Parts: sequence; structure tokens; C-alpha cells
Amino acid sequence: MKKAQRKIELYDTTLRDGAQREGISLTLEDKLKIVKRLDDFGIDYIEAGWPGSNPKDEKFFEQAKDLKLNFAKLVAFGSTRRANTPAENDKNVISLLNANTSTITIFGKSWDLHVKEALKTTLDENLNMVSDTISYLNSKGKSVFFDAEHFFDGFKNNKEYALAVLKRAKDAKAKRIVLADTNGGTLPDEVREIIREVKSYLGKNVALGIHCHNDSELAVANSIAAVQEGVLQVQGTINGFGERAGNANLCSLIPILQLKMNIPLFDEEKLKALTPLSRFIDEIANITPNDHQPFVGKSVFAHKGGIHVSAVLANPKTYEHIDPELIGNKRRVVISELSGTSNIIFKAKEMGIDLSKNRPETRKILSIIKELENQGYQFEAAEASFEILLWKGLCTRDELFDLIYWKTTVEYNERLKEIYAEAVIKLIVEGKISHSVGDGNGPVNAMDKALRSALSNHFPSLEKIHLSDYRVRVLGGSSGTGAGVRVLIDHTDSEETWTTLGVSSNIIEASYIALVDGIEYGLRKERIRKDLKEISKKLQ
Amino acid sequence: MKKAQRKIELYDTTLRDGAQREGISLTLEDKLKIVKRLDDFGIDYIEAGWPGSNPKDEKFFEQAKDLKLNFAKLVAFGSTRRANTPAENDKNVISLLNANTSTITIFGKSWDLHVKEALKTTLDENLNMVSDTISYLNSKGKSVFFDAEHFFDGFKNNKEYALAVLKRAKDAKAKRIVLADTNGGTLPDEVREIIREVKSYLGKNVALGIHCHNDSELAVANSIAAVQEGVLQVQGTINGFGERAGNANLCSLIPILQLKMNIPLFDEEKLKALTPLSRFIDEIANITPNDHQPFVGKSVFAHKGGIHVSAVLANPKTYEHIDPELIGNKRRVVISELSGTSNIIFKAKEMGIDLSKNRPETRKILSIIKELENQGYQFEAAEASFEILLWKGLCTRDELFDLIYWKTTVEYNERLKEIYAEAVIKLIVEGKISHSVGDGNGPVNAMDKALRSALSNHFPSLEKIHLSDYRVRVLGGSSGTGAGVRVLIDHTDSEETWTTLGVSSNIIEASYIALVDGIEYGLRKERIRKDLKEISKKLQ
Repeated sequence: MKKAQRKIELYDTTLRDGAQREGISLTLEDKLKIVKRLDDFGIDYIEAGWPGSNPKDEKFFEQAKDLKLNFAKLVAFGSTRRANTPAENDKNVISLLNANTSTITIFGKSWDLHVKEALKTTLDENLNMVSDTISYLNSKGKSVFFDAEHFFDGFKNNKEYALAVLKRAKDAKAKRIVLADTNGGTLPDEVREIIREVKSYLGKNVALGIHCHNDSELAVANSIAAVQEGVLQVQGTINGFGERAGNANLCSLIPILQLKMNIPLFDEEKLKALTPLSRFIDEIANITPNDHQPFVGKSVFAHKGGIHVSAVLANPKTYEHIDPELIGNKRRVVISELSGTSNIIFKAKEMGIDLSKNRPETRKILSIIKELENQGYQFEAAEASFEILLWKGLCTRDELFDLIYWKTTVEYNERLKEIYAEAVIKLIVEGKISHSVGDGNGPVNAMDKALRSALSNHFPSLEKIHLSDYRVRVLGGSSGTGAGVRVLIDHTDSEETWTTLGVSSNIIEASYIALVDGIEYGLRKERIRKDLKEISKKLQ
Repeated sequence: MKKAQRKIELYDTTLRDGAQREGISLTLEDKLKIVKRLDDFGIDYIEAGWPGSNPKDEKFFEQAKDLKLNFAKLVAFGSTRRANTPAENDKNVISLLNANTSTITIFGKSWDLHVKEALKTTLDENLNMVSDTISYLNSKGKSVFFDAEHFFDGFKNNKEYALAVLKRAKDAKAKRIVLADTNGGTLPDEVREIIREVKSYLGKNVALGIHCHNDSELAVANSIAAVQEGVLQVQGTINGFGERAGNANLCSLIPILQLKMNIPLFDEEKLKALTPLSRFIDEIANITPNDHQPFVGKSVFAHKGGIHVSAVLANPKTYEHIDPELIGNKRRVVISELSGTSNIIFKAKEMGIDLSKNRPETRKILSIIKELENQGYQFEAAEASFEILLWKGLCTRDELFDLIYWKTTVEYNERLKEIYAEAVIKLIVEGKISHSVGDGNGPVNAMDKALRSALSNHFPSLEKIHLSDYRVRVLGGSSGTGAGVRVLIDHTDSEETWTTLGVSSNIIEASYIALVDGIEYGLRKERIRKDLKEISKKLQ
């Protein structure tokens, strides 16, 4: 959807306010990946950091200069100038300019209590801080959004002052005036009434934004109320990430706006990217997805056996508020332990393999998968392992190599202050014994090197394949270091990236399994796909 | 608070609708425990099961007869009689009577689509099913609540019919008429308008209830809207448990009603039991608590940013929408990379150490922390490591032991199909060399055993300390297995649980660091606290 067609602007702050969530820590590479994905999806503004607050964000904006965005505008975030300091001399304002974005959001105080207790300055000086900073940034050719922090609390405490702050921002020509419920304590009817008063004070044509926090579980409702009162810009984060209880959840707001309030935002195909986007952000942030998250969670279009299921099969509308496909989610029928199987059948069908027929081959595969799922395997995020599994189960194949033995060692010597990790592997490849060793900064890294050294003479194309990501999840924490571990590994070549997994009570073994599958897939993917295509015809 | 003083009734369905959440399975004993706890807390009605649907619920009501409840009334839930079957012969209705509760909630269809597609009967017969069932149960001396399933969808589809269903329930003398947003797709302003129409149709004095689902992340907002329109009974579940995206969350609704809408429900002391109740239900249901759950989550009164912290210290109202103590939650200050020094200073202050003074000792500690944070340390979830760090930096101490060497080995033999993990450690403790070995199902498990074996003779109390949780996070995925790793370890003794962390590019080393800190903290925590208390006086 073209920007001009949108009546509501989407402003994402996953990378700034969202990253404040306790437990999240994003690297610079993570942030760049997320920006690209949000741009692809079709967010209007991406608030990507607060350059004045930490060197990591400053570095981010330096690197972000080279990003080519198709749709979104990158936004730097920061505060108004400090009290009694000219804007042009203010360190924070300078670093905002250095971030080199066309749009800058500055936040300022609109609650008199905060001016006195947090800023410790006068009400008048705060007004000057707001207008000076906006005017100065405007003079530098920036498009300036003003975020009125704590606006709703401020309005309730001292209406005249809160409105005076907005008036200054408007007069200084802020492009958007964003009303923030920073502490998340405001109720929807208060939001509604206060916005009405703001509009009657500032004039109907002022371009307002809304920024809600979820401390009262009302961030989505408050944002909707604001849109109904004519706000132009909606701010939020993917999956509702944010400090404390989080920010307004764009994964809920977007489908509500488009599907329930009939405000067109995305083309049909783009909207289907919502659920994958939600999972992608969880993955990068290493947050376990909330299966019960409205709209995009794994369980939210799940139907338990019995009355529901037969009704939903006859007419999905009976038990579904929207069609899950519209946002890229899926209907699931939960028939106790059989649920995994039906997912697998569905997944295989996507690859052209019909496992639903009752044949010896398919029965065998299903029972293998069931056993693996019991161990903690989950193939949703590891399609390459799933393809290899189908291939091994359904096609005739030769082993890439025969393993004899492997060993990893990590040792640390306090006198030398030296840590050393080494792996040894012995295997038979193309009829010959290959016995190799590798070292690295950890046992898995060493194992990767030993394995490559053992195989590289026989498979020269291995050179093009390399490991690009490694993730660990501990399954069920209760048994401590004795708990199972799930390892996901991404490999990449010049053309594509694929994911494999391994599960074991031993992290090295889990890593080995994922590593070998990843290498085998990389070396043989053309053949695997061809074989699977052929077998799919036979199975029909 | 006495029942008569309440203007709003609280109706909990954690045990019925809540237990439908995917992954929850409650035993009979679990259910009895939960009923007692909800009664202690002061819920008016506890919907505890659907005796017609499964034998487990029938057994529950049989046993529940002996429960002595002080405040709450137990409610059995079930459907209206089947089509063309007299109520007195209907199996479901009979099992409702057998449940032997004074109050019964029956649900019936109010959406014509459901009558046709799910019940497959006529609109007229459905009306009779509603009134017959209510009248029959009334004739048996029961207090009957009518749950109008899918009412809002029904109203939007065929208003006359949906209202006719309610009218039948009213005429048959249902004590409450509960409007259900069963699919969770309704927006707050629709809820508001539809309730207005219902009231004008049924008369202002009808006692209405509201039952919302969270599929659009609006269950709390919709319930509030209903209360504002004069609904008497609010239905929901603890922690918002329920099918799909869950039900209206009583842990959010209760504080909103009492603290923000000034509807008195609980005495001050009782309200403080809300957070413990939320944790208790998670515990029984074996659900990992959501730290970001509004009001009751562990992170929702946590303060991270530097500016926030200094302001919240001056006046908590600046960054807290309510006082967390009112609902039994706590303020926390979190240490993080974004924090600046004021968080660390505050955290230390909680431990009695004033780092704010510009002294050589405090400057040293702050620079160490900054350096560690650059490496990927995050002390927010690892308070024990933080305490040890302060202790090491500020107090004179002897080492628990001097490390010489450690080594872990993991080997796999394909012929034997056997994996073997072993750790060796050599250290000096109390002047003597101790050289030990341990094995386990992974290298960290083996290391834990070797370390214990090396230390146990010297520290007999080590026996009481054990590792209870182990978590790994890879820092920055881009460099694959060469990336840094953050390990968090929980240890526990009979009294408390503490968390330590280690960061390294090598997972074994990161684990070793966290392991040793955890053991040292467990063995020396009394001394550490005493030393820190003493030094705190000196630093003042």
C-alpha cells in the first residue's frame, strides 16, 4: 500500500522503547536486521535508538546511514535540551543531529510534577526547552516529532500547563504532537475525553500521535480510542515489547485497525507477513514466543476436540473472530497428542509430500517424528532438518560419511590464564578414514573446524558454506544442568540460509547433530529436493 | 469487605474456562486447592467445572461438597437442554443438579448462526431450550445464571433474535444474564452501545454480567466498558488463563476497578494478596509466570533507564501508575547496559552501600562494572553475582580456593552409541591441592560434580546447596559459534534461591564462572552480607 493511501501512520519503537524490556539485549547486527524487516513489512517510521544515551546507539546510526530503506523513515529519539543550555551546545541535541536521520523525535515534559521533581527546573524554562529544541532542529532541516511525555498524567494534574507545553510544540512547528501515557495508568474514556479537549484547544487540524504503555492491560484499547478521536499516528512495538508491562502491541493494533475498523494499511499479501514478523522479532530477541498472544500466537486459533471442532469445520466464523490466514496465522485443531502429527502432515504437504495416506512409508515417518517430538524436537523453525528427515525416511541414499568417534576438550590453565578448546573427529568418508582435529574459542566452534577439516578434501564446495547463527534453548529448567537442550544452527551459502536442529541432554551432542545436518543439507540440497519431488509423485 | 458492600460481583472461571488453556491440566487436588485460595481471597462466585462434560468434573463436585467456603459460592456450569428433550430427562441438566451447588450457570445460544450451524435446530426450539432449562432448575430451588454465548456476535448478526433469547431468560427468572463475547472479536465501543440497547430493551433493573475473551487484546477494556454501562457481574480468570488468547484477566480488572474506578471490592490487606494469588495459580498450573503481566508481574514495577531511577527515588508517582505495595507487588531497580551509573548506585543502596560518593573505592567498582557490561554481563537477573562483585571490590577477603586447572571432555563413540562427559579440576583449598573428577550428562553437569567433589570435604555445608536452574543466551548471533555466551545459574538451599552469571566466548568457561560464584555465594552469604553492612557504614 502506498504511503499516501494510509489514513493512519504506523510508528514502531521496538528498537528503542521495546528494547527496554527487561532481559532483551540486541546487538548492532540484530538492530540492522530488524530495521530491514520492519521496512519490508511496511512500517512508516522506525524509531531505532537514542543516540545521546549510549555509544551503541550512536554506532548504530553511523552504520544505518548505508541502509537502503524502501518504505520506512528511520527516526532518532532524544530529549529536549537541558535547562539553561542553548540547544546548539546541548550534547544530546548534537548527537541527535549526528544520527543523520531526516526525522527526529524529541520528548519533553508535560507534567508539572516531572518538571519540578525530575528536571528540577522552572515551568517556564521547560516551555523554552521544548520550543527551543524544536525550532533549532527545524532550522537544521529536520522533521521534528514532539513526544509529550506523561501527557495524560500531566493533564489530570495541571491541565493548563500540559496544554501550554503542546501549544509551544505546535507554535515551534513540530510535525507531530504525540500524547504519551508513559506510566500506562490511563483508562480509555479518559484518553478519549482528554484528546477531545486537546483538539478543541489546539485546533482540529493538528497532527496528533498516541503512545501507550500497557501497565493497566489497556494499551491497545487506549490506542484505538485515540484513533477513534482522530489521532493520525499510532506508536507501538512488535509483540508489545517494552519496559515493565510493555508498549502498545502493533501485532494487535494492525489487524484491529485494518480488519475491524476498516482502515486500510496493508495490501492483502503484506498483512500475511504479520505472524512471521512477530516470530522473527521473538527469535532475534531470544524471547520464547507467547503462544497465547492475540492474533499471532500459536494457540489463538487452536480448537479443542468436540463441539468446537465440528462447528468450526462447518463454518469457521462460528468460533473465529477473524480468518487467521489474513494475518499469516493458522487454524489448528488440537486433538490431544495427535496435534503434532497433523501439523507435520500439513508441513509435509507444503513440501509436496502427502503423509496423510495410510502407507507403510508414511506410518514409519510419522512414528519417527512422534518419537523425536517427545524428545523435544520442534521442526517449525528448522525446515532443513525436517527435509533431511523426510529424505532419510522416504528415499534411498548413501551416508555423507560414517562417524567413528568424536571428542571435544575445553581446558583452562590459571597460571597461563589461557583457555583452550579442541575437537577431534574420526570418520570414514568415501571409503577412507579421516582423522582430524580443530580448535576454536569454544567446543562447538572447534567441532565445526574439525568436521570441516575432515570433509573438505572430499567436498570442495563445503568452502562456500558457513555457519551464520547458533542458538541454544534449555528445555524445562527444573533439572538444572541435567535438562535437555535444543540447539538451532543457521548455515548460509551465497544463495540461501537454512536452519537445522539437534536435541540432547548434552549440549555438545545437540550441537553436533545440528551441525552435521546443516552441512549435509548445504552439500546436498539440490539432490534432496529432486529426490523428494520424485517420491511425492509416487506417493500420490 | 462484606458482600453486601460490593457494587460489583466477581465471578471467577479459572477452573472451567481458564483450564481450557492449551497446556494446562489440573488434578482434582489442584482444583480443590485453588477453590480454597479464591475463597480466602474474596471472590464471589467460583465456576469450578462442567459436570456434564467429563467425569473428572463430576468427581470434583462430589468432593467439593465437603469444602467449607467462607465467602464464595461454588457454581456448576453446563449447557441448556438438548433440542427436543425435556429438561428433566436431559443428561447434562441432571448432572448439573447432581453437582449440588446452590448456583448454576447455563449457557445457551444467542447467535442465530450457531443455532443453525452448531445446534442444527430451529430458532424457536432454541428459545424453548433456554426458558425450559432455567425454569426447571429454578423449580429445583437453584439460583440460575444465564450465559448468553456469542451474544455480541449474535446481536450484530440478528439483533431481534439475540434480544429475544435474553428476554426468554429474563422471563424464566434467571438471576443474572451474562453477555458473552465468546470469540473475543468485539471492540469496546460496540460493547458499550450494545449493552445500552440491551438495557433499554430488558429494563434498567435487569442484573447483567459480562464475560470477555482476549482474542483482540481487549478483554479488560471490554469488561471495564461493560461496568461503566452498569453491568453487575464481571467474569474472568486469574492471570487471564483461557482457551486461545485467554479470558478477561481478573488480576488486571480487580486493581482497575478498585484503585482507578473507585469501586470498593477488597479491604486494604486483602488486596495485597493479589500478586501472591497470581503466582500461586501459575505455580499450581505449572505455567512460567509472565514477568511482564500488568500489575502482578515481576518486571512491571522495575525501573531501568538512568533518568527514571533518579526520578522514582525522588517521587515514585513520577514513574508508577499505582503503588505496587497496594496489590502485594514490589518496586525493583534493574541494572543494565542502558542504565548509566544511577541504577547501579540505587541497587547498591538497596544493599546498604552508598556508591554515590566520589571515593576511590566507588570509582573503582563503577569502572569494573562498566567494563563487565561491555563484555555482555547484565546484572539485572543475577543479584548474587552483583553482591559478590561489590564484596570483592570493597571488602578484604580470602579466596574460597585457588584454581590451577580445569578440563572438560565430551566424547562420543559411534560403535558403542555412547556419549560420555567428564570434567577434571585441580585447585588449592585451605592450603591443600585437591584434584577431582566428575562425570555427567553434559560438560557443565560434569564440572559441577567435579567441583563439588573437590570442595565438599572442606565445606560440608555445600551438601545443602544445589543447582536448580541453568539458562544460556547467545550474545549477538552474527559470529555463529564464535559468539559470546551468557550463562545464568540458579542455586538453592533450604531457605533461598540466588542467581549468578558468567559471560565468555566459551560456554564452558561462562558456566564455570557462574557455577563458582553460585557456590561461593551459597557458602558465604552470611559473611558477605555482614561485610557489606560494615563497609556501608564506613562509606557513609
